[in-house]
Amino acid sequence: MAEISKDPLTGRAVIIAPERARRPKQFNASGTPAEACPFCPGNESATPPESWADRPANSQADRPGWSVRVVPNKYPAVSAATGVHEVIVESAAHIGNLAALDQLQFNKIFHAYRERLRTIGADGRWLYRMIFKNQGERAGATFEHAHGQLIALPFIPADVATEMSAAREFHRRESSCYYCATIERELQTKERVVTSDNAFIALCPAAPRFAFETWILPRSHASSFEAADDALVKEFAKITRQIIRALDRIEPNPPFNYFIQAPTIAAKDQASYHWQLRLLPQFSRAAGFEWGSGMHINPVAPEPAAQLLRDALI
Amino acid sequence: MAEISKDPLTGRAVIIAPERARRPKQFNASGTPAEACPFCPGNESATPPESWADRPANSQADRPGWSVRVVPNKYPAVSAATGVHEVIVESAAHIGNLAALDQLQFNKIFHAYRERLRTIGADGRWLYRMIFKNQGERAGATFEHAHGQLIALPFIPADVATEMSAAREFHRRESSCYYCATIERELQTKERVVTSDNAFIALCPAAPRFAFETWILPRSHASSFEAADDALVKEFAKITRQIIRALDRIEPNPPFNYFIQAPTIAAKDQASYHWQLRLLPQFSRAAGFEWGSGMHINPVAPEPAAQLLRDALI
Repeated sequence: MAEISKDPLTGRAVIIAPERARRPKQFNASGTPAEACPFCPGNESATPPESWADRPANSQADRPGWSVRVVPNKYPAVSAATGVHEVIVESAAHIGNLAALDQLQFNKIFHAYRERLRTIGADGRWLYRMIFKNQGERAGATFEHAHGQLIALPFIPADVATEMSAAREFHRRESSCYYCATIERELQTKERVVTSDNAFIALCPAAPRFAFETWILPRSHASSFEAADDALVKEFAKITRQIIRALDRIEPNPPFNYFIQAPTIAAKDQASYHWQLRLLPQFSRAAGFEWGSGMHINPVAPEPAAQLLRDALI
Repeated sequence: MAEISKDPLTGRAVIIAPERARRPKQFNASGTPAEACPFCPGNESATPPESWADRPANSQADRPGWSVRVVPNKYPAVSAATGVHEVIVESAAHIGNLAALDQLQFNKIFHAYRERLRTIGADGRWLYRMIFKNQGERAGATFEHAHGQLIALPFIPADVATEMSAAREFHRRESSCYYCATIERELQTKERVVTSDNAFIALCPAAPRFAFETWILPRSHASSFEAADDALVKEFAKITRQIIRALDRIEPNPPFNYFIQAPTIAAKDQASYHWQLRLLPQFSRAAGFEWGSGMHINPVAPEPAAQLLRDALI
């Protein structure tokens, strides 16, 4: 039974999840055979029954035919009483590197993210939802087959609440969304912008924790990814794929994490919180200094990182 | 040239250190030959000149004969203007696992830590010093040969300042040091205590970020490790070795980080800040969820972790 413990001094919460210790690890450089992969078509019975799938109307649940499949995590970080933990299988093919997927598949993946956030957000208990992805063993993935995850919790984690409150304070002071102001400033100097179009911008943040860290933000202010319409989801999938493919050309099969925060947005946060995806490549490891100080050491400044990513765009 | 960038919204600092990208990696499971290891005796010229060493009085600097050797980091995270970054080579023998070292060597290592903290603290510019250690590639070490590190910065990192201020507030409210109160409470219930003696206690904290996370604290209130006398340093080395050896019996050659914070203690913090070593075993990786939410998922609760460590004590 997972439970949440808080450090009495700092209030920092941790999730104690004994179930997680039972997870198998399925990583090997030479590839996992499809028959052993619980995420491959034909092995649907190796996971809990699907909660959602992108599949033909005449096909049967928990049978092959799907192109994206969502299932409860078999080794959840949270119990049913404390939250939700789902796995989003991102491809029927046994592919580990998202850069290998085509635009149509990216559209389906990001559509699935939004659908699950909408459904789970509709249950008013979960004030915090998050989509995240770990690609590659060095980024913490335990299965090779491409998959994202969704975790929902009944409270907003302290670090996220701190950022939301800083954004609220900025808005009160400057009468502007902090992220909108950042987008405008970055588009003027351009040195940290990787690419932009009418709908989105991809930029390397001024204080990146990781080498090649990149944030993707909608250019029109919006506080929630869940509210994005189908056309915007497609634009979002397009620019995210561009960035992942550029990173893949700099370092083939790159280990990375990305995440989209989806806290329940109170009225007071609607003008100041701006949804976004943060992509964190994992080329080196956090170690004693980072865990102790909370500060990261990053060998690549954001300006040369943005330049290299720009040069690698197709 | 390393520089420090702050996230404009949250104030979180990162160190941008292009020098670090040039670091060689010297890890291989079959062991590094001594001739290729810059930390082995005979290869002293492969490092910058030593800043301190435990060596016979009649021996020459930067020549063999030392038992602990401190050198400036060749690939520093900080430039000379922004801080200090030293490497403490913890053994003349090419050993990667601290559990293999005897008590006398542990005494020498912890004595070296204190000496360097005292010397670097005497330069009033560095308001924050930290000793940390990364053992094993999975814990972020880039060299196998046992070594600790010292980083000094001109400011106290936000996370450390937050904890100090929470401890100050606790003391104001409860007229007691938070850590002293925790020690007393844990000694009553005992379920999270690994071991204790007259001078120190080792306990698994109530909200551990990592499986088998263990904190070692002096039982008599003291705000600074630098002020510890020789006898206390030996007691500290003894209990730390006990814990590391117990961990090594649970998981041979365990990857871990440990750190000792050594901020400059203002008069207002002397009664409320309590120095300690935090040992963070690294059996799984932080991933997208942790980087996004700031919350950790830990598969081992502190009570069974303490029980297993107790059972593994010699």
